[in-house]
Amino acid sequence: MKLVVIGGDAAGMSAASQARKRLGTDHLEIVVFERGRFTSYSACGIPYWIGGAVDERDALIARTPEEHRKNGIDVRLQHDVVGIDLDRRQVVALHGDGEVRESFDHLVYAAGASPVVPEWARVREAGVFGVQTLEDGDAIHAWLSSSAARKPRRAVVIGGGYIGVEMAEAMIQRGLEVTLLEKSPQPMAKTADPEIGQMVQDAIRGLGIDIVTNAHVEGLETAGGRVTAVVTPSGSLPANIVVMGLGVRPNTAIARTAGLPVGATGGLRTDLRMRVEGHEDIWAAGDCVETRHLITGRPVHVPLGTHANKQGRVAGINIGGGYATFPGVIGTAVTKVCDLEVARTGLTSHEADQAGYKFVTATVESTSRAGYYPGASPMTVKLIAERRTGLLLGAQIVGRSEAAKRIDALALAVWNKMTVEEMTALDLSYAPPFAPVWDPVLIAARKATDAVHAA
Amino acid sequence: MKLVVIGGDAAGMSAASQARKRLGTDHLEIVVFERGRFTSYSACGIPYWIGGAVDERDALIARTPEEHRKNGIDVRLQHDVVGIDLDRRQVVALHGDGEVRESFDHLVYAAGASPVVPEWARVREAGVFGVQTLEDGDAIHAWLSSSAARKPRRAVVIGGGYIGVEMAEAMIQRGLEVTLLEKSPQPMAKTADPEIGQMVQDAIRGLGIDIVTNAHVEGLETAGGRVTAVVTPSGSLPANIVVMGLGVRPNTAIARTAGLPVGATGGLRTDLRMRVEGHEDIWAAGDCVETRHLITGRPVHVPLGTHANKQGRVAGINIGGGYATFPGVIGTAVTKVCDLEVARTGLTSHEADQAGYKFVTATVESTSRAGYYPGASPMTVKLIAERRTGLLLGAQIVGRSEAAKRIDALALAVWNKMTVEEMTALDLSYAPPFAPVWDPVLIAARKATDAVHAA
Repeated sequence: MKLVVIGGDAAGMSAASQARKRLGTDHLEIVVFERGRFTSYSACGIPYWIGGAVDERDALIARTPEEHRKNGIDVRLQHDVVGIDLDRRQVVALHGDGEVRESFDHLVYAAGASPVVPEWARVREAGVFGVQTLEDGDAIHAWLSSSAARKPRRAVVIGGGYIGVEMAEAMIQRGLEVTLLEKSPQPMAKTADPEIGQMVQDAIRGLGIDIVTNAHVEGLETAGGRVTAVVTPSGSLPANIVVMGLGVRPNTAIARTAGLPVGATGGLRTDLRMRVEGHEDIWAAGDCVETRHLITGRPVHVPLGTHANKQGRVAGINIGGGYATFPGVIGTAVTKVCDLEVARTGLTSHEADQAGYKFVTATVESTSRAGYYPGASPMTVKLIAERRTGLLLGAQIVGRSEAAKRIDALALAVWNKMTVEEMTALDLSYAPPFAPVWDPVLIAARKATDAVHAA
Repeated sequence: MKLVVIGGDAAGMSAASQARKRLGTDHLEIVVFERGRFTSYSACGIPYWIGGAVDERDALIARTPEEHRKNGIDVRLQHDVVGIDLDRRQVVALHGDGEVRESFDHLVYAAGASPVVPEWARVREAGVFGVQTLEDGDAIHAWLSSSAARKPRRAVVIGGGYIGVEMAEAMIQRGLEVTLLEKSPQPMAKTADPEIGQMVQDAIRGLGIDIVTNAHVEGLETAGGRVTAVVTPSGSLPANIVVMGLGVRPNTAIARTAGLPVGATGGLRTDLRMRVEGHEDIWAAGDCVETRHLITGRPVHVPLGTHANKQGRVAGINIGGGYATFPGVIGTAVTKVCDLEVARTGLTSHEADQAGYKFVTATVESTSRAGYYPGASPMTVKLIAERRTGLLLGAQIVGRSEAAKRIDALALAVWNKMTVEEMTALDLSYAPPFAPVWDPVLIAARKATDAVHAA
């Protein structure tokens, strides 16, 4: 049996590794086509490497092509897949000047996603970068390390979502002057409620980053082939490097051309086992697929490494003859801005509204440890509960330390469809170094219960 | 209507406060009898005050008697309740030389628990202390602050459970030489699996505490009315202060005499609304009651402040005309030893065994953050899953930082009766500063799933 994998990062290599684990080299041949030069790396770590918290690029690489090859996986780097022939069950790739064809019994499509880059910004050689692949990270790193005369001093980051905020912080840590442009009234407008976004905005300002909200970008100015400014209606912002943080789009062109089904979100459609809909031996995983939101039941595109790894693993188990499913996501995410931790799970108020829910919210201010215990720091917990049922629809946490990872308990509550009233009885861990005797999550559940009763 | 409350700490005052919140002073009179001099304090905080992490005793007091009185709660300090007359619906208390009687419509029995102190150790005036009330904390603090000539230099702590370990650390922080005696082969023998207990033991030794396991204590030696040594079969251990950490027993003597039902655990029996079984207007809450273990279904006595607060609140809501329940506990707990964090939820291996479960276990070593991210520290997650069903029965976490509070996610998994296989799909938060891309909880769930399949 032969498995061909398109894409050598988290999803593709997880699939390959799981299939290999279940079927030895006698029973399964595995070929992986990877467009770039790396496999199995943490794209999420790029901002921390650029910012200097992580010393070496290679620390971001979980498993090199050589390591995969030792595991009997034939990794072909710098192979750009240009076509899939479903009838002949072949994949066509370009490598240098040549064309390579590989037939397959099973195919895993894990081509990832690409940053949204407006037409006017497609000038990477001028110092305008998306942040998606390790090659992107390399390019940014090299640009920032230009010789003294050309060394960038001013960065503009376009887009105030996770990657934009993380890259803005990385740039200021590198000693650049940084402006962050966000078209909404707050950063993280898509992922956090406005008042949470406001806290993020304050933290961004606190870092010395100049953040401009309600911003509109019209284009770039360049000179000598290098970017010099970002043009906005209110004037030009000097810039020697521009980072695009406008999100990503699934890389589905090849799949679409081959006739594989693409959903409304732009991602490939699969079943719970990560099998492409309507195609017995074609699988897909990672940033190129859409998945199901477990609260709304709607298809969503949530390009996160954690989902890519899980989906790839599920595909690999199924290819290897096992049984596994990826049921969907509930929108859990976390990041930090300086020492401000921000986390969410389930639906934000806006998302709940969009999905047609009537809901109440409850926000509480508490502390990460018992108030009297050294190091107790303030944290905010916001819950969103369905109006009549009290079903927990979503939660957001902001805090200074030991705060954000607590979102996982709330993610489990959302996952298990708990009501906020049920949550008030939860047996959460308590000791003064770890929580007040009423954990902030419980206080929030109490307040949300009151709001449900009052509504 | 008149409510009498016996016991002015977490459970009693939570009940009083909730009842007051729902029924104003025109509709409800509230009298609280408290044996000691304090109300609503954090007994869990005592080791940290003794150890110096918390500067002031009064920081442990959440609400003083005066504050409660302003809230229309008639708190009577140093009133020792000696009897309940159910027929006449009266409570009898001693105050100084006098006897006080109060009639009630509703009664909340929240008399707490007392440290287990063997006959030979009932010599508090000689420097032998339990740690349960703030008065106990005061007495220990005063003893440790004795004038130079009498100042204790050597402490022996008897019992290696949570309070024993926390007090041993407090003593060494105060500059004493400390020996911890534990009758089992490991500390925390009742609350952690042996290999986890071993890690705790190593951490205790790392603090410079001399820990003796498999220890047997025969008695004390005193001179001039002060303890001088703890006697064991292998010789006498010099000691100028002895702390008893042998657990606590519910204070139910008065209730039992009055005819209220006491369960096999020694705690008062209540229904889910915290009403004493068979008694319409008699309620009980806190360390003096037994509750239900939600996995085994069996009655248990789990004297923790977090339960006391919840139970008191539930009783108060019900007294006030609302509806609330306390369904039970799942055995979640957390502590730290120096920088070693230790947490548990559900059943330990021993408890699962005792409850008749067949189970598999899976232990994984991972890190608190992405391995490449600064400050990533090792953490161990152990899961216990029912053999055939894969139902998560229990979990334990040990780590150096940002580890223990993650037990809450596992507590939610236990609470919601998830299988370890379902858990592998959980949408937990991921970003390099907060977790590896495969969260340790997910890695453990994967390994436990494999173990269930292999069993």
